[in-house]
Amino acid sequence: MLFASDNAGPAHPNVMRHLERANAGYMASYGADPIMEQVRNQLREVFEAPEAAVYLVATGTAANALALACYTQPWQTVFCTHVAHIQEDECNAPEFYTGGAKLSLVEGGDKMTPDALRARIDAEERRGVHGPQRGPVSITQVTERGQVYTLDELRDLTEVARGFALPVHLDGARFANAQVALGCSPAEMTWKAGVDVVCFGGTKNGCLGVEAVIFFDPAKAWEFELRRKRAAHLFSKHRYLSAQMAGYLEGDTWLEAARAANGSCAQLAEGLRARTAEMIHPPQANMIFARFPRRIHQRLHDAGAVYYIWEGALEGDDPDERLTARLVCDWSTEAAQIDLFLSHFDE
Amino acid sequence: MLFASDNAGPAHPNVMRHLERANAGYMASYGADPIMEQVRNQLREVFEAPEAAVYLVATGTAANALALACYTQPWQTVFCTHVAHIQEDECNAPEFYTGGAKLSLVEGGDKMTPDALRARIDAEERRGVHGPQRGPVSITQVTERGQVYTLDELRDLTEVARGFALPVHLDGARFANAQVALGCSPAEMTWKAGVDVVCFGGTKNGCLGVEAVIFFDPAKAWEFELRRKRAAHLFSKHRYLSAQMAGYLEGDTWLEAARAANGSCAQLAEGLRARTAEMIHPPQANMIFARFPRRIHQRLHDAGAVYYIWEGALEGDDPDERLTARLVCDWSTEAAQIDLFLSHFDE
Amino acid sequence: MLFASDNAGPAHPNVMRHLERANAGYMASYGADPIMEQVRNQLREVFEAPEAAVYLVATGTAANALALACYTQPWQTVFCTHVAHIQEDECNAPEFYTGGAKLSLVEGGDKMTPDALRARIDAEERRGVHGPQRGPVSITQVTERGQVYTLDELRDLTEVARGFALPVHLDGARFANAQVALGCSPAEMTWKAGVDVVCFGGTKNGCLGVEAVIFFDPAKAWEFELRRKRAAHLFSKHRYLSAQMAGYLEGDTWLEAARAANGSCAQLAEGLRARTAEMIHPPQANMIFARFPRRIHQRLHDAGAVYYIWEGALEGDDPDERLTARLVCDWSTEAAQIDLFLSHFDE
Amino acid sequence: MLFASDNAGPAHPNVMRHLERANAGYMASYGADPIMEQVRNQLREVFEAPEAAVYLVATGTAANALALACYTQPWQTVFCTHVAHIQEDECNAPEFYTGGAKLSLVEGGDKMTPDALRARIDAEERRGVHGPQRGPVSITQVTERGQVYTLDELRDLTEVARGFALPVHLDGARFANAQVALGCSPAEMTWKAGVDVVCFGGTKNGCLGVEAVIFFDPAKAWEFELRRKRAAHLFSKHRYLSAQMAGYLEGDTWLEAARAANGSCAQLAEGLRARTAEMIHPPQANMIFARFPRRIHQRLHDAGAVYYIWEGALEGDDPDERLTARLVCDWSTEAAQIDLFLSHFDE
Repeated sequence: MLFASDNAGPAHPNVMRHLERANAGYMASYGADPIMEQVRNQLREVFEAPEAAVYLVATGTAANALALACYTQPWQTVFCTHVAHIQEDECNAPEFYTGGAKLSLVEGGDKMTPDALRARIDAEERRGVHGPQRGPVSITQVTERGQVYTLDELRDLTEVARGFALPVHLDGARFANAQVALGCSPAEMTWKAGVDVVCFGGTKNGCLGVEAVIFFDPAKAWEFELRRKRAAHLFSKHRYLSAQMAGYLEGDTWLEAARAANGSCAQLAEGLRARTAEMIHPPQANMIFARFPRRIHQRLHDAGAVYYIWEGALEGDDPDERLTARLVCDWSTEAAQIDLFLSHFDE
Repeated sequence: MLFASDNAGPAHPNVMRHLERANAGYMASYGADPIMEQVRNQLREVFEAPEAAVYLVATGTAANALALACYTQPWQTVFCTHVAHIQEDECNAPEFYTGGAKLSLVEGGDKMTPDALRARIDAEERRGVHGPQRGPVSITQVTERGQVYTLDELRDLTEVARGFALPVHLDGARFANAQVALGCSPAEMTWKAGVDVVCFGGTKNGCLGVEAVIFFDPAKAWEFELRRKRAAHLFSKHRYLSAQMAGYLEGDTWLEAARAANGSCAQLAEGLRARTAEMIHPPQANMIFARFPRRIHQRLHDAGAVYYIWEGALEGDDPDERLTARLVCDWSTEAAQIDLFLSHFDE
Repeated sequence: MLFASDNAGPAHPNVMRHLERANAGYMASYGADPIMEQVRNQLREVFEAPEAAVYLVATGTAANALALACYTQPWQTVFCTHVAHIQEDECNAPEFYTGGAKLSLVEGGDKMTPDALRARIDAEERRGVHGPQRGPVSITQVTERGQVYTLDELRDLTEVARGFALPVHLDGARFANAQVALGCSPAEMTWKAGVDVVCFGGTKNGCLGVEAVIFFDPAKAWEFELRRKRAAHLFSKHRYLSAQMAGYLEGDTWLEAARAANGSCAQLAEGLRARTAEMIHPPQANMIFARFPRRIHQRLHDAGAVYYIWEGALEGDDPDERLTARLVCDWSTEAAQIDLFLSHFDE
Repeated sequence: MLFASDNAGPAHPNVMRHLERANAGYMASYGADPIMEQVRNQLREVFEAPEAAVYLVATGTAANALALACYTQPWQTVFCTHVAHIQEDECNAPEFYTGGAKLSLVEGGDKMTPDALRARIDAEERRGVHGPQRGPVSITQVTERGQVYTLDELRDLTEVARGFALPVHLDGARFANAQVALGCSPAEMTWKAGVDVVCFGGTKNGCLGVEAVIFFDPAKAWEFELRRKRAAHLFSKHRYLSAQMAGYLEGDTWLEAARAANGSCAQLAEGLRARTAEMIHPPQANMIFARFPRRIHQRLHDAGAVYYIWEGALEGDDPDERLTARLVCDWSTEAAQIDLFLSHFDE
């Protein structure tokens, strides 16, 4: 009954197997390993982008901060939502990596709308040299509340960005979960939809710690390499990043892992709904925000269930008061654990 | 005949075993994993420093840059040698992490002398608010030229630093190799010798990618945690850093690995000397700078030997001209490969 | 009919006179001039703060950014309103000077309320190391919309800050105008109300370009000096900053200048109200936001009046549509010009 | 007998007159004042550069740091001498403004030689992504030791820079003194000699605080404006910078002031030589480094002479020991004071 996060589960066996295999003998360092060469080609194929510049780093925050820094001058501002990971969960890493750029928060909830984005962009850069200048638009797919932008929604947002000649960054820490949810191709969800650079997450979906940063226009390639090195994110024994990604891509491991996570999540959501839990955001990938009474939380808690109480407190006077739980599945979530979890709703 | 670098060899089996073992089931993320708890205690024991603040990051540059940043204000200058890794090989990472501090290069070769250090420190901060202010002293042990400071030498340097009330950072990317070379204890080579913070390397000595940063005074602990997160070096699936370090420490794997590397290096050096190669720096750990004729380089090269030609060019008119080779051993270097390498000297 | 800004008027004769007087002979540079010594003492007396650290810089943005940087770590966030000068009008200077800190915008209008401030502070730092950490509260007095916080309001805000152990910065680019409006003492509006550091503006109120930064606790003094030098804001011929401030303080020039500006503004506001212009924000110092019909704007514009149309466009179909004008008075505004301006309302 | 610095003297009457004249009435702020328009045209004429982008700031450090930042990426290194103002006297301002670039010190004395520059550039960027990348070359004219590069010397240095495709920055804090010394045109000493951006100093030569930054290629214009604003160096009442420069340029005030300073310096040097003082660097502009016995220093000191003792200490046992004095003249130095100073040598 472990639903705390998709970064608390183990790595996928295929990923581990590749890691071990990569551990044989001597290998060129700093990204010159032959596995990276292969992974680069694989990702270019997966994204139907033969010219793309492809890099690996070990954390999602590094991927986001480095990708954004390549598109953001220190006097600019990045457009994102109030709940974006880059805003709330990176301890000012984007500000650090960009040399002090600002983040402009688009009004509304956790999914950006084109109108709200346009209004926010429009409101900036009205003061000539005095105010921050407009910078890139950053979209999170899957969002931090488990929502998935449709391809139409993505295109509508990037069209707004294009209208102001602004580049678009996609934070795809849960890229695979979104893709499985939409049933589209990686190209459709990125460059065909107007995305310039994507952070293609591996860590949350079965890797130990690897994310790809993919620039569809390779013009930023060398700058990225210098920024990565300067930020201490170039691995000397890079083969171990490459190998993770090789295992992740092999035989669609990444899609299977995401299908498993999303499937578990759907199963859990269905069970919760059937037990009159309310869904705050309709679960669309591998994350659920559900409201149910405190007494059930307490029962689950006592039984060893692990998850975040997003709103409300476990301790409280009113056992019927509804608290919001965040429940996250990953590729390793077991059906039996879901059933066990749901069984605690039945009194 | 692979002597290019100690970051091109494989990870030690003990490290891999711990990595696999750590891959079972659910585990708290972001450093709250129980393996980290254990590793922290082990490192405190190893360093006889029960109060020390202990952290893991994945790269040596991150370890150095984060450790230095905790002791360096942006208007200060860090004292190091011309050949320090932080000066030559980190693409301005120290400047980035400190928010724009300077590095002041101590005159002389690759080993700092107390007099040269004192003179350099003395020369700074003579202009009140106008010039850079004095910051930490950074010492590299093993140096970038394979030299090892004796305990007396270390103490003499830190004493100079203390005289100016400056903190001392030890870049220990090859800490184990130095310790084995000196036959001393970790405490003797660090806090007992006046070191405030040490980067205790794992990557070059049998790990995939892990370095410990150890503050003997824990006052900087929370600042380090914030800096690490902001720099995107806090791993979500931190257990895989912890596990590497656990395997590295288990049963003195780290010391055995360093003994193997230093032993191979000594064997190689002896063979080279016997074959009239000159040693530029007397090899003291796992790195050799040797001069021998171009025709032998060419022969080795043709036979598949891999190493850096540090000075001179492989192609050239004079077959008897002596070029300088950098040859690095790691734990996995095989005696037979050394013999094979040396056999190419015999004509 | 020149109401564009209080930085478009001339310097006060007293200020000019001191500038000329300071131009005689040799004088120590970089702030060691005897005029600075006198000015420091004067400002300490004015603020009833004998221990205060007192510095001069030439621009309001420098004053704010340097003062904030002394109280803000790069991983923290500064609390301010959406319309604060530091947010909208400094092209990311606070982010630059703090090394990449964030600004957290307090909900609501241009005046912060204690509840909104508390809610905003409360919402940050809920994610441990992951999110930005709480930093200083920055209050603007007079606000960017011409509003003045009462002493009670100020104290209520600083009390919220104290509740979270956060320091308080006062952006006093129009300090004198606020003080005149409140009829209080400088001490009452600053340290007695819980302010830690104030930027005491001179430029907008009759100087050429000088602002004092006053730390009531001198602990930050040396850090400020280093930050000022590093930011290139330490003047070599500092006497010319000192002399401006000396002229500004002499014989309450600063208060008379502000009384004149506020008085002109009140006269203008009264006239506008009498002519059915609506006041968006009740004018409390030297700034008015007034709504009146386009046709009057056009008539004023044709007659050479200069001011910002804050909302709406000068050209448009509907002559009766009301546009918002921003009208700013300074010490040099002439009553005849106000009358002339108002006369254009009469048809 | 005041020879401490050329920033301790008064402003030139012509500069003051223009300042007063500029103080009449209303004027557009932030550089949109008509005086700036005129000054821009004047400087373009002076430099025979009709396309040049021309800006004013108030301090020499700001001019240097902003100009360099426009040509330096954070992962690059700036080439300069050990005694450059940007290295020794700006408290890491270049590092701050560039976002953490490095300074690479060219071997040798206070004047760079082409060979030493080439060797230094050549030594950098040999490690691909690992080391700092080559950035601009910064030349100081007049040097910090009072030396003047001939036009040939300047061209030889910029040719080296061009060979590596690196831009060239000229720190001209004492530009006028150099020009007078060489008897050349401003264009010959800058863009005709291969300089890309020059800081054209006013402060040390009769202004209160103003320096022009002139980009011969205007491509960096907008970036400079944003950097200047973000760094808090855009003056709201910009007219007072413009007016200083207008007075400085009017009727060749700037050249006359420099001629006066250099002339006084020559007179002083001649007198010193006649009195057996040694010149450390042959004085070529307005600065002298002279060695003479301690007893004379003491006598001068007792008589109220003000200057820096560059090497040695005023107090000491041996009255015949020679100490090095730095003596600086400016436009206001009086011949009688020089005579008086020299009279103290005669016993």
